Amino acid sequence: MPLGVFDSGLGGLTVLKEIHRVLPAENLIYFGDTARVPYGNKSSKTIIRYSREIAEFLIARDVKAIVVACNTASSYALDALRSMTDIPVLGVIDPAVRSLTQKAQRKSTAGLIATKSTIASRAYEAALERHHGDQFLVSQACPLLVPLIEEGYANSAAADLILKDYLQPMVDRGVEYLLLGCTHYPLIAQAILRLYPHLKLIDSAEETAAELRNLLAERGAMRSGTNGSVDLYVSDMTDSMRALRDLFFAANVDRFETAEVGEQ
Amino acid sequence: MPLGVFDSGLGGLTVLKEIHRVLPAENLIYFGDTARVPYGNKSSKTIIRYSREIAEFLIARDVKAIVVACNTASSYALDALRSMTDIPVLGVIDPAVRSLTQKAQRKSTAGLIATKSTIASRAYEAALERHHGDQFLVSQACPLLVPLIEEGYANSAAADLILKDYLQPMVDRGVEYLLLGCTHYPLIAQAILRLYPHLKLIDSAEETAAELRNLLAERGAMRSGTNGSVDLYVSDMTDSMRALRDLFFAANVDRFETAEVGEQ
Repeated sequence: MPLGVFDSGLGGLTVLKEIHRVLPAENLIYFGDTARVPYGNKSSKTIIRYSREIAEFLIARDVKAIVVACNTASSYALDALRSMTDIPVLGVIDPAVRSLTQKAQRKSTAGLIATKSTIASRAYEAALERHHGDQFLVSQACPLLVPLIEEGYANSAAADLILKDYLQPMVDRGVEYLLLGCTHYPLIAQAILRLYPHLKLIDSAEETAAELRNLLAERGAMRSGTNGSVDLYVSDMTDSMRALRDLFFAANVDRFETAEVGEQ
Repeated sequence: MPLGVFDSGLGGLTVLKEIHRVLPAENLIYFGDTARVPYGNKSSKTIIRYSREIAEFLIARDVKAIVVACNTASSYALDALRSMTDIPVLGVIDPAVRSLTQKAQRKSTAGLIATKSTIASRAYEAALERHHGDQFLVSQACPLLVPLIEEGYANSAAADLILKDYLQPMVDRGVEYLLLGCTHYPLIAQAILRLYPHLKLIDSAEETAAELRNLLAERGAMRSGTNGSVDLYVSDMTDSMRALRDLFFAANVDRFETAEVGEQ
């Protein structure tokens, strides 16, 4: 049985890439909702509806687990998805927050950068409480980073100016660990570290893939062998989407095609 | 009977504002598809489907004309919409191109900035041919301008760097007239003129409102009086959308609420 992974668009491919790296034998099905991307400025009601429609698509393909590779959907839709199915549903927030509680000093101040909707959800604060973390979170919505990354401006003078606007106030407050709360952000990590070399970045993709591996191992549900298939589905296809696919997931895929979900 | 105006999001409010200014007696109904915004990177098939669903919503409200206040939808969906209804359907491209052919020197080189989908459609080139314009168009997709404007970065050092990337090659080719091919761009016009004071900007909002007034006058369909109503509908509502409403249309409105279109 395959693993299902979804995102509002193609940014979640950073998570898929990491899953493919640590679990190369698994068959992977990815859905990117490119007809309705982005979710990061949309309401919880709309985000939950879209996420349920995609979960139905994946469940119909007999997946053995669903990874919500989108911080915004992980912020709002996990409970709704778990009420639909008995298979495990993993978000990207808990794995990152667990890692923070293990690495960061007690009572230290940590930073969170994410979309507006993710910040507004306070999902990271709730996860910190679940994991009994006593770190203090300062958060910053960074709505310009996704377009800058997608347009190839991650390493540019303009991105540096905007990153300083977003990050300097956090650095001034003594932040050492920074949670990358959006699947796109690993692609701008290098620029962040060039500006602020002392920051320690926590990347949801790595932490989520590790947690997924543990979960499959515990359940004896890992596939053996080496070459799993990778099938990518999107709700809309254009040249931009083909370019983003290459940006986020340059490896070979078995399938890259359009599929409809819900009633759209 | 009211006038119907729609856009992928709230940028089309720059067109609504201009219509409200030149036709203050008209009752206006605006629909912004904020649950599926933006259209600028999406495929023609998806853009046409979304536009038809919104046109049905407006037609059900007995509008006497529909203004497609979105360059991307104007690029792809006008024929599809005109086949649905006998009421006039106006796009924002023809009015701007007509103005260009009247103002710009014969055989001169003019510039066009717009979203990726609008540029890819070659709708401006087709309109230029329809209007027998012999100007030569150089076009540039500017996908970062919408997010910069929406995040309040229209007048910033970062926006200046990005504007120079987009516009310098056009200026080097002798462009004098520049078509603002996206409803958001009037809000960055000041920054463009600060960098390139010799450019002459052609704004679709002004040209479209003027054309609409002529059309209503010809048909004897203008409403008399002074205070028309302004009703705004969006397919999704968040704080960001309330902020954008204020950014693009600061005037009082009679209604600002959520409505569903199509099967979504």
